Amino acid sequence: MAVLPAREDKESSRNLFLRAAGELMTERGSLEVSLSDIAQKAQLNSALVKYYFGSKDGLLLALTEHVLSTGIAQLQGLLEMDISVLEKLKIHINGITATYLRYPFVNRLIHLMMAKPETGAYVAKHVSRPLAEAHRRLLEEGVAAGVLVPINPMMFHLIVVGACDQLFFGQHVLKHAFDVDRIDEDLRREYTRTLLDLILNGLLVHKS
Amino acid sequence: MAVLPAREDKESSRNLFLRAAGELMTERGSLEVSLSDIAQKAQLNSALVKYYFGSKDGLLLALTEHVLSTGIAQLQGLLEMDISVLEKLKIHINGITATYLRYPFVNRLIHLMMAKPETGAYVAKHVSRPLAEAHRRLLEEGVAAGVLVPINPMMFHLIVVGACDQLFFGQHVLKHAFDVDRIDEDLRREYTRTLLDLILNGLLVHKS
Repeated sequence: MAVLPAREDKESSRNLFLRAAGELMTERGSLEVSLSDIAQKAQLNSALVKYYFGSKDGLLLALTEHVLSTGIAQLQGLLEMDISVLEKLKIHINGITATYLRYPFVNRLIHLMMAKPETGAYVAKHVSRPLAEAHRRLLEEGVAAGVLVPINPMMFHLIVVGACDQLFFGQHVLKHAFDVDRIDEDLRREYTRTLLDLILNGLLVHKS
Repeated sequence: MAVLPAREDKESSRNLFLRAAGELMTERGSLEVSLSDIAQKAQLNSALVKYYFGSKDGLLLALTEHVLSTGIAQLQGLLEMDISVLEKLKIHINGITATYLRYPFVNRLIHLMMAKPETGAYVAKHVSRPLAEAHRRLLEEGVAAGVLVPINPMMFHLIVVGACDQLFFGQHVLKHAFDVDRIDEDLRREYTRTLLDLILNGLLVHKS
């Protein structure tokens, strides 16, 4: 039997669980990880999950916040910065793909949390709404500056999130259909550049 | 005990299983459906799954083919048609979102099949490679015609699939974050139009 950890170990044991859960999801390409697998990976007693998180859903919700809260706070700061709207858009989309490279499961984790009544409203309030609202403000700023054409912000949000996620969600597709073995930082950068170029300039040849 | 169905019932019982599986996945927004749930929904004995499909993976693979094989055959025909590359691109992307509206689980189903060694190579050969190859040919045709700028075809494929899928994958996000209760044909059309406009023309204001 594990005893309750001393006060100063609490933070690190909690983080060990979160890191173990994230690593297992990344390795397996699936959110289907059991508490006993997580505990084994973290080298902690699975009964401690209840102590730290209340339940498996509590652990998954904590993981969602752990992965996204810093980025969402930074996003608020980015919106206030004194740089052009195009720079903001580039930094932001680069931030999304960087998060997905590190935590390739996160979009599916958000959807899983959204699908449950107990966690859906919380994740919407703290993750999806702030992200969608940031997209809306960025687009509005761009239109007001005469730089961007108008687009439905909800649809822009879904297009960008889906496009960013598919590279990382598509790990097996990449292997089987394109013979790409590994999604690394170089591929992420090139993908981000290609996506930004596409959504800014479009595919059509502009005849001048 | 169910008896084996008479020869003339075979096709329809097989399809009843496939339809039941698809309907359950759509209702639940999840691929996690048990054989007994599928059998109950189809009003058939779950032992018949083994007779028709060999295993649950066999049923999932048959469902993947059932949903996608017609569209992929039509795609080959579309590529050969005597219409402009822009028309082909519009018809094709409209076809993807129409498939996702009807079968919102299909992108995740492909990924699940891809992640398994027994089914991955088969789905890659019959689904992902033909789709990616069609995207490559469309883009090449557009560049050769002087209509489209060059783009990495693998990345274009991932961006389009991810962007199309996110509307339908994001059902709970839409509800919680955007107060959209239902993804219907009108929303699908508007989303497709917005996506096409974005990837063709881009967001930047073109100064002439």
